[in-house]
Amino acid sequence: MNVLLVHAHPEPGSLNGALRDFSIERLRDAGHAVQLSDLYAMNWKAVLDADDSTDRQAGARFHPELDSRHAFEHGTQSRDIELEQDKLRWADAVILQFPMWWFSMPAILKGWVERVYAYGFGYGVGEHSDRRWGDRYGEGTLAGKRAMLVVTAGGWESHYGPRGINGPMDDLLFPIQHGILYYPGFDVLPPFVVYRTGRIDEAGFAAVRDALGRRLDDLGKTAPIPFRPQNAGDYRIPDMTLRPDLAVDRVGFSIHVAQAADSSGACGAGPSRPTSS
Amino acid sequence: MNVLLVHAHPEPGSLNGALRDFSIERLRDAGHAVQLSDLYAMNWKAVLDADDSTDRQAGARFHPELDSRHAFEHGTQSRDIELEQDKLRWADAVILQFPMWWFSMPAILKGWVERVYAYGFGYGVGEHSDRRWGDRYGEGTLAGKRAMLVVTAGGWESHYGPRGINGPMDDLLFPIQHGILYYPGFDVLPPFVVYRTGRIDEAGFAAVRDALGRRLDDLGKTAPIPFRPQNAGDYRIPDMTLRPDLAVDRVGFSIHVAQAADSSGACGAGPSRPTSS
Repeated sequence: MNVLLVHAHPEPGSLNGALRDFSIERLRDAGHAVQLSDLYAMNWKAVLDADDSTDRQAGARFHPELDSRHAFEHGTQSRDIELEQDKLRWADAVILQFPMWWFSMPAILKGWVERVYAYGFGYGVGEHSDRRWGDRYGEGTLAGKRAMLVVTAGGWESHYGPRGINGPMDDLLFPIQHGILYYPGFDVLPPFVVYRTGRIDEAGFAAVRDALGRRLDDLGKTAPIPFRPQNAGDYRIPDMTLRPDLAVDRVGFSIHVAQAADSSGACGAGPSRPTSS
Repeated sequence: MNVLLVHAHPEPGSLNGALRDFSIERLRDAGHAVQLSDLYAMNWKAVLDADDSTDRQAGARFHPELDSRHAFEHGTQSRDIELEQDKLRWADAVILQFPMWWFSMPAILKGWVERVYAYGFGYGVGEHSDRRWGDRYGEGTLAGKRAMLVVTAGGWESHYGPRGINGPMDDLLFPIQHGILYYPGFDVLPPFVVYRTGRIDEAGFAAVRDALGRRLDDLGKTAPIPFRPQNAGDYRIPDMTLRPDLAVDRVGFSIHVAQAADSSGACGAGPSRPTSS
């Protein structure tokens, strides 16, 4: 496979840097082709602005969506954006690797998403009408490709558990996994998360490395998270709400995962009942 | 009151720019002192890196947390970071105003959080031990101040409803409202969200402006979201999980909101029962 690793940590000698190097080596040893976008090392421009197109009219009003669409359609995007889009087209699998900062990805990686996901590439793809809301959530430019997060967190695993104070890790990652990866079409694999990174010793690092290695070995065959596709009947268009007979009585992000929602959840399965019961 | 407005949109002539100008005028007319951090206009440095301290040793390994702590304790932070911290200390209320891009804040604002929330200021405050996990989630440097999000979104309100395909807006904002605002101590007011921004005409804008105006008029008295404080008994330390007798049988971010979790929720209140029921 062709694998793109997008890496966002400022220090090459960090745990993240070590996991980056390990991942590249493991993937290449398995016969994969690997490209690396090391955002800090590339001095990636994090901020989306009018300079992202090369034919910008001085003094014209900047409209993030319309200007992105124009530049994408007319081949006037900044070269750095085009190069990243080419890497995404090339890739069969994409790994985003980053430390969780303030319960999301670092700004430099968020800015990579904002700039590389142009209108017509990352969004605004396919027919948009009252009958069809574009090719997204399971369809789109990046459909057929796989994506996986590799995330490090300073807190304990219990802090990110179902009842942990930070909120469940799966829910914290939902805006990324569903909103950034599934949206333009990726099949999203379960994330690889390392907790309590401040206390990892040599033995701990070896264990993390081994576990990550197994995930990389299985990159092509791990079952994706079964997010519900937008255009296969589960959602009503144009209000884009989940059909009333699905995930009955359930709330939260997990209703958009087919397995969890179609089987018994924390609220019990069974027939519909008043929410005030 | 002293109000700090942190604004993150690249185009002054946008809807966001208009709401920024309106907010400043409305607040000043009501007698408040207002400071504006217009991040794009300030050319705010979005990327956290080794240049964020002024006494950086060339070639030394960069550690985001430890270097931030050192700079904060020794007065060697970048001047732009210090200025924003001073504004936060000055403020009685802080408004973060931004367009929702990819289900979170723009990179430039995320980078403001990452850089301004230094170790010792935004986190790493108070005693950290197995008995007390710091002053955070309701305590901390910014305790006693109020914060509110003003967010614009292109999609319809139903797309962000309880069963909307994007996920519920309250859940999408949880990592920001709970993880970024409540964490260092803010009382977090319910957000002001504008949907379907691409279709707002003059009448629609007038309605939005009026509704926002009322929220600004009530900035000092609106009841905050009752997030559960960390150190008042609701959580077990050090695993930082919600006490088993609270929010029984409930899942998701909302268990960390006292009102919702302590009363009947979607799963019903009542005594504990097996989750497989």
